[in-house]
Amino acid sequence: MDETGNQAALWASIRDALEADLAAGLYAPGDKLPSEAQLAARFCANRHTVRRALASLAEAGIVHARRGAGVFVTARPTRYRIGRRTRFHQNLHAAGLHPEKRHVRLETRPADAREAQALDLAPGAPVHVWEGVSIADGTPIALFRSVFCAARFPALKEALAQTHSVTVALARCGLEDYTRRETRVSVSIADAIKARHLMLDPGAPLLRTVGINVDPQGRPVEYGRTWFAGERVELVVGDE
Amino acid sequence: MDETGNQAALWASIRDALEADLAAGLYAPGDKLPSEAQLAARFCANRHTVRRALASLAEAGIVHARRGAGVFVTARPTRYRIGRRTRFHQNLHAAGLHPEKRHVRLETRPADAREAQALDLAPGAPVHVWEGVSIADGTPIALFRSVFCAARFPALKEALAQTHSVTVALARCGLEDYTRRETRVSVSIADAIKARHLMLDPGAPLLRTVGINVDPQGRPVEYGRTWFAGERVELVVGDE
Repeated sequence: MDETGNQAALWASIRDALEADLAAGLYAPGDKLPSEAQLAARFCANRHTVRRALASLAEAGIVHARRGAGVFVTARPTRYRIGRRTRFHQNLHAAGLHPEKRHVRLETRPADAREAQALDLAPGAPVHVWEGVSIADGTPIALFRSVFCAARFPALKEALAQTHSVTVALARCGLEDYTRRETRVSVSIADAIKARHLMLDPGAPLLRTVGINVDPQGRPVEYGRTWFAGERVELVVGDE
Repeated sequence: MDETGNQAALWASIRDALEADLAAGLYAPGDKLPSEAQLAARFCANRHTVRRALASLAEAGIVHARRGAGVFVTARPTRYRIGRRTRFHQNLHAAGLHPEKRHVRLETRPADAREAQALDLAPGAPVHVWEGVSIADGTPIALFRSVFCAARFPALKEALAQTHSVTVALARCGLEDYTRRETRVSVSIADAIKARHLMLDPGAPLLRTVGINVDPQGRPVEYGRTWFAGERVELVVGDE
């Protein structure tokens, strides 16, 4: 039987019925769906057909299976826009979420080779390093590490400590505007420390971004690395 | 001892020495590094210090540990640019790689709800579906699934079969230009089928992108989903 035949209609109908249940709020994010056997009985279908419907929902990111535990409703991921004007607070407000940043580390130390290269500094030049956790409506969504030239922004460390905002702190230091030159996105795996900060299991997949923000003259001002909790975030690429 | 002290200098020196070895080609992508004990002897350091140097290289994506097997040199990931003018062949040529696409599936069938919505069609309207594997210099880097309105491009299936290129096939059907409206990037996990196509272990992390390409009038022409092998690809966001 091909995909346009009756069997196809059945698995697609089961998927659509489950999607409607989810849209109606019958199952909330984190809830476990009924077992395959229960769904097979409800839809008068065999388990193979039910499995195909569940696989289709899983592929769309709506549910996910946990080995030996069942199929669960996936929480809707936070959409986070990456473009020339990437701004944490603005991004989360636009998504209707309350943004917060929690300090992990704020210090001034010599730049390592990569940081110096990214910021166009001599190796070992002093940099401010701000590390923290980005939180949306109380849930940690990312761990970030931002590095700035300390000679250019001597008062930045204090401004970050007070404001918890890169945009506001840079403005206090006289930089009114900056834009994102480029962002690189890759996958990485949570080690024990990142997992603790993000409330994930060690080994959970992360979306890692590396970006450089530049001033209106094109000089780099911020070298930023961010590790997003893969299961909680979807990056949206492109400017509004 | 703080980060600017002597211990810091030692682990950073070990990291820099290993990085120089790698840059000099002493260890190639896929090679196993000497054991921690061997490195400790070479650098006259304790294993804790060696481990810190290796952790720093791992965090930068230069090496990775495999549980129980050792530390390996990571292959340099393929950079793949995502922006308004995302083009597969052009992207890989720019990276100095030979691009290929291998067919997995090419068929015309009714659109499901998501595809119809993305392409602005009535549910069930006929669509061409092209699924395949994107290959860079012989290595599979992504599995893609592209969906097009069949009524608008009746000859597209044949053109794709002949040309293996969306850009060329659409041009043959009279569409000279298209741009990417938006791309969403998330993490997903390779199931058995995706793992086989991409020559990965099931459970390996994937970078999943979902994008819609539009014609110069802004009408959607292609709904594309791509699953990149996380360990082989880095997405670069922003137009050149």
